[in-house]
Amino acid sequence: MLAVVREKVMPRIDGARLIADLRRIAEFGRYQTGVHRPCLSEVDVASRRWLAERFAEAGLEASIDGIGNVFGRSRAPGPKLLMGSHTDTQPRGGWLDGVMGVIYGLEVARAFRDDPACRDIGVDVASWADEEGNFGSFVGSRSFIGALDEAEIDQMVSREDGTPLRQAIAQAGLAGEPRAQLDPARYRGYLEAHIEQGGVLEHERKRIGVVTGIVGIVLLHLRFTGKQNHAGTTPMPIRKDAGVALTTYCSAVHERFRKLTGPATVWTVGQIRLDPNMPSIIPGAAEMLLQIRDPELDKVDELAAEAKKLAAEANAAGPCGVAIEQMSRTLPTRSEPKFMDALQAAAETHAPGGWMRMPSGAGHDAQILAKKLPSAMLFVPSIGGVSHHFSEDTGEADIALGCQVFADAAAAILRG
Amino acid sequence: MLAVVREKVMPRIDGARLIADLRRIAEFGRYQTGVHRPCLSEVDVASRRWLAERFAEAGLEASIDGIGNVFGRSRAPGPKLLMGSHTDTQPRGGWLDGVMGVIYGLEVARAFRDDPACRDIGVDVASWADEEGNFGSFVGSRSFIGALDEAEIDQMVSREDGTPLRQAIAQAGLAGEPRAQLDPARYRGYLEAHIEQGGVLEHERKRIGVVTGIVGIVLLHLRFTGKQNHAGTTPMPIRKDAGVALTTYCSAVHERFRKLTGPATVWTVGQIRLDPNMPSIIPGAAEMLLQIRDPELDKVDELAAEAKKLAAEANAAGPCGVAIEQMSRTLPTRSEPKFMDALQAAAETHAPGGWMRMPSGAGHDAQILAKKLPSAMLFVPSIGGVSHHFSEDTGEADIALGCQVFADAAAAILRG
Repeated sequence: MLAVVREKVMPRIDGARLIADLRRIAEFGRYQTGVHRPCLSEVDVASRRWLAERFAEAGLEASIDGIGNVFGRSRAPGPKLLMGSHTDTQPRGGWLDGVMGVIYGLEVARAFRDDPACRDIGVDVASWADEEGNFGSFVGSRSFIGALDEAEIDQMVSREDGTPLRQAIAQAGLAGEPRAQLDPARYRGYLEAHIEQGGVLEHERKRIGVVTGIVGIVLLHLRFTGKQNHAGTTPMPIRKDAGVALTTYCSAVHERFRKLTGPATVWTVGQIRLDPNMPSIIPGAAEMLLQIRDPELDKVDELAAEAKKLAAEANAAGPCGVAIEQMSRTLPTRSEPKFMDALQAAAETHAPGGWMRMPSGAGHDAQILAKKLPSAMLFVPSIGGVSHHFSEDTGEADIALGCQVFADAAAAILRG
Repeated sequence: MLAVVREKVMPRIDGARLIADLRRIAEFGRYQTGVHRPCLSEVDVASRRWLAERFAEAGLEASIDGIGNVFGRSRAPGPKLLMGSHTDTQPRGGWLDGVMGVIYGLEVARAFRDDPACRDIGVDVASWADEEGNFGSFVGSRSFIGALDEAEIDQMVSREDGTPLRQAIAQAGLAGEPRAQLDPARYRGYLEAHIEQGGVLEHERKRIGVVTGIVGIVLLHLRFTGKQNHAGTTPMPIRKDAGVALTTYCSAVHERFRKLTGPATVWTVGQIRLDPNMPSIIPGAAEMLLQIRDPELDKVDELAAEAKKLAAEANAAGPCGVAIEQMSRTLPTRSEPKFMDALQAAAETHAPGGWMRMPSGAGHDAQILAKKLPSAMLFVPSIGGVSHHFSEDTGEADIALGCQVFADAAAAILRG
């Protein structure tokens, strides 16, 4: 009787097969211990065709649509979940970021196929094109939910080499393909697995993160305008140094924000540009990007308002002008409570006490799918918290455990 | 009798001829109201050949040497001065920066030729190659005083387009030419005229600057090393953000230096680079250049020591590492007192009360020649203090006045 119970609640994933597929796809665009695979580059297209073959081998109906999304559709007659993530990578990024969630979907489909108790339920698996922003923001998943129009596609070019997206699609042999559109009635919801990309799980000695939601993000652009001049001949009192204005503003932001921060607030000045950025020239202009993230929209908005207030103060004080513009504002996403419960129960089965609930500080395709479907995410630990670097890694035992938890949770949701 | 006295003390320059030559050479590489003429670019080589023709027309022995220096040598039997500056420009720079001093020399040579009282004395005129640093630092004048060896030339490449200096010399048809070497016995000394490149003369309502010396410069390179990571998933307390370390250091430098500054001290952070400089990535490394200038060597060294102390404090405080390196240290140069007196007397004759003594905040070829010859410089005002920008300008009356003062002072020095 025990065996029967196990079969009902536990489709068994094959950890060795899972790892082997992850190692194989990492060969497409290998860079040191990581991968350089920008969306619709030659190696990326090759990896998509390889993935479609794996989907077909697993008994799924494989296709690549007109934006580069790769699908493996279940032929099961019963209820279905959509699973996915992305197989494109950051420039010189890690071997698991994105692709792990796609291969989890493939492995869950194989586990369902191989388990007589799971043959009535199914998963569709997707690799969403360009999650990492080679051409734009969440290009593939937005296309799938109907939030990407043709005019926007016309405008997109690769940040790697300037290739227009239209040309990249044509070179991939996809110019004639339609863009697949979501039929929400087909699915119970959407699940995505991903590496954590941070150090919280490792620090808390947990192996599974049950994601409560994805943070809201405000991105602010600041431009400081001074007066370009010779760095040897312009006395300090009459200078209008845009670089000084920028670094002074940064110090003010860091000091003020530290007093306002919530438990999960983060902010980053990731990009600074001085103009002309020459050692003997007083910068005439300087630009920076300030990004603020928090699971609570109110906190994101409060800090953004504070950044704008500091900019207005700097502008009034002079001698440089300051213009601040809100480039984007992404609303926080909340996970489906029933899906979180299913992930938590499966995690407790396989790693008792080894899981925790946590927000996602990073953006994921799940936040796009969540606009149309109940959604949730699972995290596995990142060694040393490293992400967006070729040295990113996760222990093989954690990779296999995460996939088993993911499979169990999916089966439980579909049977629920 | 008055006419005779005038002839003896006053070779007469031709202001219209001077301005016409300046307008003509500005056509080589014209960029808006300024000039883009990197050393040994095609237009620069053409301008050097044009200049050599003007020297020959003026009765000088014209040549271009194996590093690109253009010379016009006097055939006068008596005492001689060396005059010069540079005809290459900053990228998209002004129409007078450098070239004015060269055409001053040409015009003084013509004025001497045309004045029977000056036929026994002479000026050699030079356009020093690459003062503006396309390939290196003071390439032409260093070559002339014997402070540039072949191995250094082998290493130099254009910052504009990466062309090796050797290749640029060959393309200019100069590969076979020797590099001219200074014979100090030939000259009483070296004079250079230049635009001020700052706003002091204009602010003080003066038309002539008698340069007391050239400031000392220390250039410091700082590298901050943190840990590159995802900007959404790395909690603030465990971050090692090299960009935050850099901007915090800049604020500390500006605050500390303001308390230590002398009357002519300037300092500049002209260059900042974050790595990888992406909006969603915590910078793992950040670099900056800090330049300190003062006419007094002690002050330059005091501020450089303070910058190093602040870096050591930041390094000890963490969480990022800081490495500071002194890239260069240029000693201040002091002008020859007798030359300053001659410039001052000539300025008082033509613009009574309209001159002042002042240091040069910028570096000039004169600081190289001063290692071997008594040297001095004359400045004319820069409108609005603008420099290293195509809108740099000086009033035509000030240009002509400066040349007349320069010619008078040269005659006085050679007769003294």
